[in-house]
Amino acid sequence: MSRFSFTLNATDGAARSGVIHTPRGAIRTPAFMPVGTAGTVKAMMPESVRATGADILLGNTYHLMLRPTAERVHALGGLHRFMNWDRPILTDSGGFQVMSLASLRKLSEEGVRFSSHIDGSKHMLTPERSIEIQRLLGSDIVMCFDECPALPADEKAVAESMRLSMRWARRSKEAFGDRPGHALFGIMQGGVTRDLREESAKALIEIGFDGYAVGGLAVGEGQEAMFGVLDYAPGFLPQDKPRYLMGVGKPDDIVGAVQRGIDMMDCVLPSRSGRTGQAWTRRGAVNLRNARHKDDPRPLDAACTCPACRNYSRAYLHHVVRADEIIGSMLLTWHNLHYYQELMQGLRDAISAGTLDAFVAQFHAQRAEGDIEPL
Amino acid sequence: MSRFSFTLNATDGAARSGVIHTPRGAIRTPAFMPVGTAGTVKAMMPESVRATGADILLGNTYHLMLRPTAERVHALGGLHRFMNWDRPILTDSGGFQVMSLASLRKLSEEGVRFSSHIDGSKHMLTPERSIEIQRLLGSDIVMCFDECPALPADEKAVAESMRLSMRWARRSKEAFGDRPGHALFGIMQGGVTRDLREESAKALIEIGFDGYAVGGLAVGEGQEAMFGVLDYAPGFLPQDKPRYLMGVGKPDDIVGAVQRGIDMMDCVLPSRSGRTGQAWTRRGAVNLRNARHKDDPRPLDAACTCPACRNYSRAYLHHVVRADEIIGSMLLTWHNLHYYQELMQGLRDAISAGTLDAFVAQFHAQRAEGDIEPL
Repeated sequence: MSRFSFTLNATDGAARSGVIHTPRGAIRTPAFMPVGTAGTVKAMMPESVRATGADILLGNTYHLMLRPTAERVHALGGLHRFMNWDRPILTDSGGFQVMSLASLRKLSEEGVRFSSHIDGSKHMLTPERSIEIQRLLGSDIVMCFDECPALPADEKAVAESMRLSMRWARRSKEAFGDRPGHALFGIMQGGVTRDLREESAKALIEIGFDGYAVGGLAVGEGQEAMFGVLDYAPGFLPQDKPRYLMGVGKPDDIVGAVQRGIDMMDCVLPSRSGRTGQAWTRRGAVNLRNARHKDDPRPLDAACTCPACRNYSRAYLHHVVRADEIIGSMLLTWHNLHYYQELMQGLRDAISAGTLDAFVAQFHAQRAEGDIEPL
Repeated sequence: MSRFSFTLNATDGAARSGVIHTPRGAIRTPAFMPVGTAGTVKAMMPESVRATGADILLGNTYHLMLRPTAERVHALGGLHRFMNWDRPILTDSGGFQVMSLASLRKLSEEGVRFSSHIDGSKHMLTPERSIEIQRLLGSDIVMCFDECPALPADEKAVAESMRLSMRWARRSKEAFGDRPGHALFGIMQGGVTRDLREESAKALIEIGFDGYAVGGLAVGEGQEAMFGVLDYAPGFLPQDKPRYLMGVGKPDDIVGAVQRGIDMMDCVLPSRSGRTGQAWTRRGAVNLRNARHKDDPRPLDAACTCPACRNYSRAYLHHVVRADEIIGSMLLTWHNLHYYQELMQGLRDAISAGTLDAFVAQFHAQRAEGDIEPL
């Protein structure tokens, strides 16, 4: 079995393009990871997710530990086999979702005690248990268990939380041990405070990880503050390891993050939007529920090659969204994931060609035009 | 443009196998038509419906006239283009669904006045308007507008209703006119009364249609009564035209109907069941919600080649059904439609080989075994 490794192929300013090699296949970076929350990227067959160009999926430890449970997934041959996806999977640690979804949370040095949002059952997540769950799931890229405070927050609280996460990072590393072909990523915290981000990065580097995430962003601080952190935070991390910005984002967030040296991202946005009638296109967001589409025979995006754009009119998409037909979610999720992957391919190509500035300028210019005029 | 025609290739007892030729492609009979209610077979991409082996879909006049409206579908290039299905489409007349779904119905010699179940808007369906709607949709096989009384019902009421439907059949034929490449089917009524069925058949034959439906069954009379009618009713119809049993049914209904000389059927059952966690297999119905499946690594049906059976365990199907994940509806609908089409292929092959009795015996024997034992 080959080892986990990262090859940096090209840079353009702070932006980087490369390949993460794993025994389950290559991940072209910058990479966008669709979210397969509970063992499925909602409304998509996994072969369709692959057809959009995704090299890797994200799975949620919190959801899977509660249902169907990590032990059950393990007994059934692991998450890849369970959900019929044989390429790489990254799992989060559960830390973020415990704080956002579970009830009766109690945080201690040991970890987080909480009640399930599904059935109220009591659980405990610790660095050791999170790493064990991710091992049982068979994750290729395992994330350290961390605490992620919502922003804005008191700087002292952010500092204490960050230092707790660094102690948990060390325990995560010890629990992970040596697993050739699998990777463990550390997660930088520190809110929007430069000194704390630097302190966090140094602590992680001292422990040593296969990759480094920038955590604690996209939690309410706004794009300007996020980009403010990304102007310096990636520079605190090793050049030769992948950098992952967790939970980001809208297309313009992704472009800005890549410009600032981020290699990997994940977000529920393209799939969640697809279930509410919202499409993301090169000309911005389009709401298919809007009555302006009801007689429109044109495709959502004439230049897009996804099934929703190749085979259907805006009028059809409007109809199935209004009628709450499942195919509306299927087609718009497919389109959105396709658009996101096409954007990533554009970014990778531009970085390789040294033309990222021109690509980004065109990206913003097209969005500024807005959607095509109504008929 | 070639004309609509029917070729009978083989018979075995009363059962028949053949091909309906249409300008949009051949329909192998006995045929099962998946129902694409409102411009989509729910939870399925049309290319997936085709992959199950379907030669033809059914569209619902009642649903489509209300939303997105027949005029809009017509302006957008017709139903085939609208829903991305270029093979034959049969549309019902709207008569049955007006009586089962609409509110404030008022029946007269002219037709049915009713209010939409979606927004309460007022509409009138007559034989002429139904035929016009089906023409606007671009239907390949158009059904006469009829009235379908629920059973059991008073014989006098059934007779009066049948005679009204026969007057409407004549008006439907006049409204349809001459449309090469398109077919108009008459619908036999008469409940469970042999004399009325014969009277209805004679009235329809006198008018003359491209095919004949047996209507007014599968409306509460039970399988025994339905088979009782099918023991004689198909014999009242011309040998050289296709015979369509509307709204049927469960797998054993289908087998019994084919044995009695039916060539075409439609039913929402495989798709509707797929959205509630119920699968149809050669060993009978399987409820994937049941906890017996939660640790079961075996496929739903080891001999089935559909994606749900090839790529997933019962444990996965159980998980996604319980978690209300859309992929549960997608996979189980696909499986159910695949199973139905495989059953039709088995019936066609057996009729061609003159081995229908053996096929039917095996069909019942496999179902009698029941589902595989729990682990």
